[in-house]
Amino acid sequence: MTNAQKSLVLLSGGQDSATCLAIALQQGDVHAVGFDYGQRHRVELQAAGRLAAEAGVAFEVIELPIISQLTTNALTRHDQVIEVKSGELPSTFVDGRNMVFLTFAAIRAKQLGIQRIYSGVCQTDFSGYPDCRDVFVKSLNVTLNLAMGYDFVLDTPLMWLTKADTVRLMANLKRLDWYRLTHTCYDGQVPPCGQCPACKLRAAGFAEAGIADPLLDAQ
Amino acid sequence: MTNAQKSLVLLSGGQDSATCLAIALQQGDVHAVGFDYGQRHRVELQAAGRLAAEAGVAFEVIELPIISQLTTNALTRHDQVIEVKSGELPSTFVDGRNMVFLTFAAIRAKQLGIQRIYSGVCQTDFSGYPDCRDVFVKSLNVTLNLAMGYDFVLDTPLMWLTKADTVRLMANLKRLDWYRLTHTCYDGQVPPCGQCPACKLRAAGFAEAGIADPLLDAQ
Repeated sequence: MTNAQKSLVLLSGGQDSATCLAIALQQGDVHAVGFDYGQRHRVELQAAGRLAAEAGVAFEVIELPIISQLTTNALTRHDQVIEVKSGELPSTFVDGRNMVFLTFAAIRAKQLGIQRIYSGVCQTDFSGYPDCRDVFVKSLNVTLNLAMGYDFVLDTPLMWLTKADTVRLMANLKRLDWYRLTHTCYDGQVPPCGQCPACKLRAAGFAEAGIADPLLDAQ
Repeated sequence: MTNAQKSLVLLSGGQDSATCLAIALQQGDVHAVGFDYGQRHRVELQAAGRLAAEAGVAFEVIELPIISQLTTNALTRHDQVIEVKSGELPSTFVDGRNMVFLTFAAIRAKQLGIQRIYSGVCQTDFSGYPDCRDVFVKSLNVTLNLAMGYDFVLDTPLMWLTKADTVRLMANLKRLDWYRLTHTCYDGQVPPCGQCPACKLRAAGFAEAGIADPLLDAQ
């Protein structure tokens, strides 16, 4: 009773999830979901909505205010500084965030009869976030299947790509223009601040690929 | 920087979680958490609060309204009938419920520097719920540890006990009187309806143990 032609895409509104959306659409229909967890850069949800509209797919926002209530981190709290100290988890790490997102995505996917779930999670630029690692995603896939008695497939096509690889992939998919709709800046600024770790990582990827960022062109 | 003397207990207010609370208190301090997910039998949260007060431990309710929004089941929807059909998941199954509860409990435990998490989940009377199985809990333990880079211990002391075993265990712990504070009925009725699967399971356990249920004595 599953729909093998349809997939669910975690659409944060960033560059990686936009790329996953383009990949997923090559396989068939897509149901996209985003998460509102009180993130500073909530503007990314608007970006996700614009991407979904451009792609012509359904987009649903799942409300998870409990994440910002339970954890203290620089992504949801304005009184925390965004920084990375050697040997420590980055201050932007939200404990369990990807696990919670993928778990709720799976609950929704099962409701819709969907098995395949795309996430742009990437170990190559994981920046010390333990829940961006491939071993975590594989373990989670097993746990989800046991939890719900269902054969989910967690598909993470960007896991081992560099940011430059991802940009080149999107160029090959002829969807480079979608990047103009994305949001990356952790600080929620439009145009992007250019200084936060997320902005710097994005800029380095486009530079290495030798491709101009359509987001900056659009400003 | 963990507190080896302290544990977190998932306290639903039912018989099994009350037993876990008694077990955990033998090891040291306890922080108890309950979940409000729009369950019909929300009265169980009051039972959990009474148990925590009796035991003298902190009790925190985590709000997860999203669970009842995402899933259709007889535990949260009044328009669904509570029933069990042969070969199907029971209509009371909330997809991913134990996984979501244990994941948020783990996020909170890490914040508090706690490693050990007690849950009254039990395979012996699992009634077809896949997320009550031991293999699921063990898989989840690995996934949580990978997700957060932390050494959680999911402790499920009732996993292989019958309901009668649990009643006897509580008698040995000299906490049988706590059962008068518990709530079991799925339909949220006080006094219990006596007809739903949860009420029947409870009654059978006390009968087999040859011990009177303090909850019924209290009516």
